Amino acid sequence: MPSFLAPPLAPLRIVFDSPAATAEPAGPVLVRRMSSLEGLFEQEGLRRQLADGPDPIVYTVASSPVPELPRELPQSITTIAPGTLGGEFYMTKGHQHPDPQGEIYLCLRGTGGLLTFDGTTTSWIEMTPGVIGYMPPGWAHRSVNTGDDEYQFLAVYPGSAGHDYQWVVENGMGERIFRGPQGPVRRPFRVDTQAIA
Amino acid sequence: MPSFLAPPLAPLRIVFDSPAATAEPAGPVLVRRMSSLEGLFEQEGLRRQLADGPDPIVYTVASSPVPELPRELPQSITTIAPGTLGGEFYMTKGHQHPDPQGEIYLCLRGTGGLLTFDGTTTSWIEMTPGVIGYMPPGWAHRSVNTGDDEYQFLAVYPGSAGHDYQWVVENGMGERIFRGPQGPVRRPFRVDTQAIA
Repeated sequence: MPSFLAPPLAPLRIVFDSPAATAEPAGPVLVRRMSSLEGLFEQEGLRRQLADGPDPIVYTVASSPVPELPRELPQSITTIAPGTLGGEFYMTKGHQHPDPQGEIYLCLRGTGGLLTFDGTTTSWIEMTPGVIGYMPPGWAHRSVNTGDDEYQFLAVYPGSAGHDYQWVVENGMGERIFRGPQGPVRRPFRVDTQAIA
Repeated sequence: MPSFLAPPLAPLRIVFDSPAATAEPAGPVLVRRMSSLEGLFEQEGLRRQLADGPDPIVYTVASSPVPELPRELPQSITTIAPGTLGGEFYMTKGHQHPDPQGEIYLCLRGTGGLLTFDGTTTSWIEMTPGVIGYMPPGWAHRSVNTGDDEYQFLAVYPGSAGHDYQWVVENGMGERIFRGPQGPVRRPFRVDTQAIA
């Protein structure tokens, strides 16, 4: 038998409850409010006002107990609330993997998309239930809720990958996704420097 | 940017068609008939008769184009026909990963289970639609159709993992799954040595 950094788990039967947005057995749960998303929306001034006021939940991430360790393959479900901030759709922080590894996203309900950026090229994948978005190693990725209901997906990623959120704050995602009259509109990435200054 | 053994793919939108058992865009497709399953059922003599006769399809595996390369995260859907051979349910060959890596199986339709074996301990996970079976690194695993309809699941596994089928031929899976009067029955692993001799 091989040797491991940590002894592997026993085999596990995992049920993600889509309406409740939970995993059974449960692992860590993350709740991201507007106050957790500093510097990520174009309208940083508006975001700050909302964070200082009602500070709404933008998304939650419920993980199974499979740990983020090399050789394990953790999973989570993310549920993004519907909404916009200055016309820009509610979204996740987005991240790059410090250890470049592929990741899959399987849409469970709602309508959304995956914005991906390798530092040069931006790609946009429309997501509806049953669709898998494949994020190759080296591409940063962010999920966006473009619908009027919650948008939910299952993520599966190697335990060694890690999450670098700062990469996205510093490099952006190449584009932003706004509500348009006929659906989502992709616009070049810019920041509200006045609000940040 | 990191360096890669092979340049990573562009981000991909993948749709697995559950009724048709296909992936779009499509990658490799495997068809396993009874003649491909030498030495795996308890009743090897019966299997040989069937392989020499109608040689039915036991299961198919349809993969996306994501390659089995380090850092990529390939996926496939497997569809196992309903049936038994000498009372033993139709099943996949089963495999061990030469590079020990976790794998997930998400049940899409039908009723089945995952038989897992680390060389000492056997575990059985019942699978119904929406359930994830988590196979930790170091555990061989086999899927079994215990229902009267097709059993189908999505598999996601690191591209470096590989598939060692011979490990299962040599070590078995600790147990076998037979049709019983009240559902599946787990029995200790044995082989029909008379038929093999």
